Amino acid sequence: MKVVSLEKVEKFKVDMEGAKGASKQIPISASDGTPALSVRVFTIEPGGHTPYHQHPFEHLNYAIEGQGVVVTENKGELQFNKGDFALVLPNEMHQYRNTSEHEPLVVICAVPKEYE
Amino acid sequence: MKVVSLEKVEKFKVDMEGAKGASKQIPISASDGTPALSVRVFTIEPGGHTPYHQHPFEHLNYAIEGQGVVVTENKGELQFNKGDFALVLPNEMHQYRNTSEHEPLVVICAVPKEYE
Repeated sequence: MKVVSLEKVEKFKVDMEGAKGASKQIPISASDGTPALSVRVFTIEPGGHTPYHQHPFEHLNYAIEGQGVVVTENKGELQFNKGDFALVLPNEMHQYRNTSEHEPLVVICAVPKEYE
Repeated sequence: MKVVSLEKVEKFKVDMEGAKGASKQIPISASDGTPALSVRVFTIEPGGHTPYHQHPFEHLNYAIEGQGVVVTENKGELQFNKGDFALVLPNEMHQYRNTSEHEPLVVICAVPKEYE
């Protein structure tokens, strides 16, 4: 059993190509002994975004705070605001963009631990 | 790609033995085609709780709203409030209890999809 407050988890900048104004925290990781799942939290500043990319595993996302969109290949930009869940399937192109001028967009992202 | 607002997801009562004042939503389920993960959301009313139980898979939890505790076998009651993450490992006894007199405790619970 581990309980941790998000505000106490170390935050580091996402320096992937195509990312802008984004940072990452890992509240629950493979190093905690979880057999299957890991969870990351991305904070995207106003004007910021994650890379527009794809990968061979799924995401489960939840917006803790803020207003944004998910950019998709086939459905255009989908609203993704506080209180919304998203499922990104393996190999789907996707990007999270903050559309607020003032607030961060804070997104939980659960993945199979192999892809932490 | 699926995006859904939590407030639009059907909510149904948890009628497991040992549960009180708890309801469940499943924003992302195996039926959405996710290869590995499913996510449920439990809303626990003031005075309510989930069962004190264990199972052979892990939980990843996040408190969206409210104030509560996780009851554990070896560590007593751990505070579990809005903004906190928890990892429940396989076979660990656990129970979520709402400790507020007024607010619901709303908890995301990601699991391997086999245990949805």
